[in-house]
Amino acid sequence: MSTTPTTTRQWLLTRQPTGAPILSGPSATFSLVTAELPPLQDGQVLCRVRYISNDPGQRGFIGIGVADERMYVPPVHVGTPMRAGVIADVLASRAPSLQPGQTVMNLHLGLWSEYVVLAAADCQPLAPLPGGLPVTHFLGALGAPGLTAYYGLVEVLQAGSQHNTLVVSAAAGATGSMVVQIAKKLLGVKRVVGIAGGPAKCAWVRDRLGADACVDYKSASFADDLAAATDGFVDLYFDNIGGAILDAVLPRMQRGGTIAVCGAVSTYNDAEPMGLRHWMEIVSMRLQLKGFVLLDWMDQIPRAIGELVTAVVEGKIVLGEEHETVIETGIEGVPEAWMKLFEGANRGKLITKLV
Amino acid sequence: MSTTPTTTRQWLLTRQPTGAPILSGPSATFSLVTAELPPLQDGQVLCRVRYISNDPGQRGFIGIGVADERMYVPPVHVGTPMRAGVIADVLASRAPSLQPGQTVMNLHLGLWSEYVVLAAADCQPLAPLPGGLPVTHFLGALGAPGLTAYYGLVEVLQAGSQHNTLVVSAAAGATGSMVVQIAKKLLGVKRVVGIAGGPAKCAWVRDRLGADACVDYKSASFADDLAAATDGFVDLYFDNIGGAILDAVLPRMQRGGTIAVCGAVSTYNDAEPMGLRHWMEIVSMRLQLKGFVLLDWMDQIPRAIGELVTAVVEGKIVLGEEHETVIETGIEGVPEAWMKLFEGANRGKLITKLV
Repeated sequence: MSTTPTTTRQWLLTRQPTGAPILSGPSATFSLVTAELPPLQDGQVLCRVRYISNDPGQRGFIGIGVADERMYVPPVHVGTPMRAGVIADVLASRAPSLQPGQTVMNLHLGLWSEYVVLAAADCQPLAPLPGGLPVTHFLGALGAPGLTAYYGLVEVLQAGSQHNTLVVSAAAGATGSMVVQIAKKLLGVKRVVGIAGGPAKCAWVRDRLGADACVDYKSASFADDLAAATDGFVDLYFDNIGGAILDAVLPRMQRGGTIAVCGAVSTYNDAEPMGLRHWMEIVSMRLQLKGFVLLDWMDQIPRAIGELVTAVVEGKIVLGEEHETVIETGIEGVPEAWMKLFEGANRGKLITKLV
Repeated sequence: MSTTPTTTRQWLLTRQPTGAPILSGPSATFSLVTAELPPLQDGQVLCRVRYISNDPGQRGFIGIGVADERMYVPPVHVGTPMRAGVIADVLASRAPSLQPGQTVMNLHLGLWSEYVVLAAADCQPLAPLPGGLPVTHFLGALGAPGLTAYYGLVEVLQAGSQHNTLVVSAAAGATGSMVVQIAKKLLGVKRVVGIAGGPAKCAWVRDRLGADACVDYKSASFADDLAAATDGFVDLYFDNIGGAILDAVLPRMQRGGTIAVCGAVSTYNDAEPMGLRHWMEIVSMRLQLKGFVLLDWMDQIPRAIGELVTAVVEGKIVLGEEHETVIETGIEGVPEAWMKLFEGANRGKLITKLV
């Protein structure tokens, strides 16, 4: 057993970016420092970070045009460590509930750090998943992204077999890939159409996740392909992307259709306003748009996780290694790994494994 | 009594504009022609047009980025006369229900024309209004704009005394001026804040219509003024404007607030996409946006008109000459008068009186 560390390398927010975060140079958004670890207080644990969750929502911690007090989570202030969901091993504990050697998850208050001191109350001990599934799925399909898919469909869109066609953007992403499966296999939506970037992702969404069609937004024929895949028009749109893809879907919406506004990852690094040519479709087709945040169902989450795990065990929902993109890196590579989210580089959940 | 005319001057759509309609020159959007009047068929009336209704929605007839088959009304095709709501005098009738000398309204199928042949079934004979109010109010406060205000508030926003603050844009316009009055005086919304252009309009919205505040969007201090007027934040926003003003209101919305999307007049003549910097407020504040079209309540409209007339007679709603901006012109000036809508030139309903 190694000596308990007293310092850690960690990434601080240096300045709020106005467009894309900058990885290096004098204007860098983040900086890597070595910091003293605070002495453990009662109720706290010292942990070694094993996995870091990469989420588009983290871009909101450092500014996306919404004032701090109006964001659904507190911001990361300049000069403080960047926050992230993490899976970590307990090295030392002053909390009776957790012992050294246990693996825990902290979805809100982990840091881009090698070691971190956390309140035990904020940490969830991770039991092994059935079927030998890795616990990292608790950051993805069985964690916040999967639950966002679940509540967006069940509560916001109230999706079911009465709906003819649902479209979801970022369909190969952590949330979108679960939207496809839950809508099609658990809720019985008649036709599910994904939108994803590139033929390989589209094939995966179709052949492995079970979408009826998946349209490649990088293709020159995107608009025509989307029209062909949504013949009869769209009742429900689960929007993870915003921007040009939202604008392309608006003229495909059915009269009275509903759009769940989950995020707008295509725009977070864009200093320009989101541009919509087809706004008047909202009026002419009597559309409803509904913003939502997973936090609003926090008290019901254990039940939903149970439902998803059962669906996996029963083989209704496919879940495996292919649903994660894991980047192994030292602490130096953490911001760069996170930025791959915005390049559309990942299939399923993008996870950083600290080595 | 003059001879029954056999020809008429009228405006045809020459070409669909991509940005602002062009009034003259080789690229003109409309052209004035002299056309033969078709011989009267059974069930038709020949009318002389007295008043033409000017509506932002007419911009949609000639293209606003929504495909023809997805608009809530049919388009005007190139080479055919421009449509408008009209009030007209019957000159000749082959319909038992209408006699020469009667005054009728046709809200959908009138034309930019001196004379017009209409189906009697589409024409509503106009009875005198109580209190000596001119019948032109049936084009404004007691017509489509007033009814749009009514159903947008009652059905879409379900506005009532449970709501602390409602904001309405284009508050001095035909629809907005009725939104202010109905929300404040009939439905009991606690605080009603208008947005209008210039101090004179703002004073009218406040002092005559009864808004608690009215913010001038042309003022350099607009953002600060809006923030000051919406302290405590906004439950309901009635959006007639879209664009930059919508973008300014988004950060003032209360968590869980609702936006009625009635139109986007600020953008109809703009070839650029609508730009929104504050889209993510929809997510972070769990906002709902609801598009709507008055046509969906067509069967209930007589009851609503009755309710509005009663409110005027009882003095609950103020209605007078000041609620109309009347432009007197020959047929030559009709397109130019209509274009004043987009300059924000009118207070209340903008009406063209043919002389």
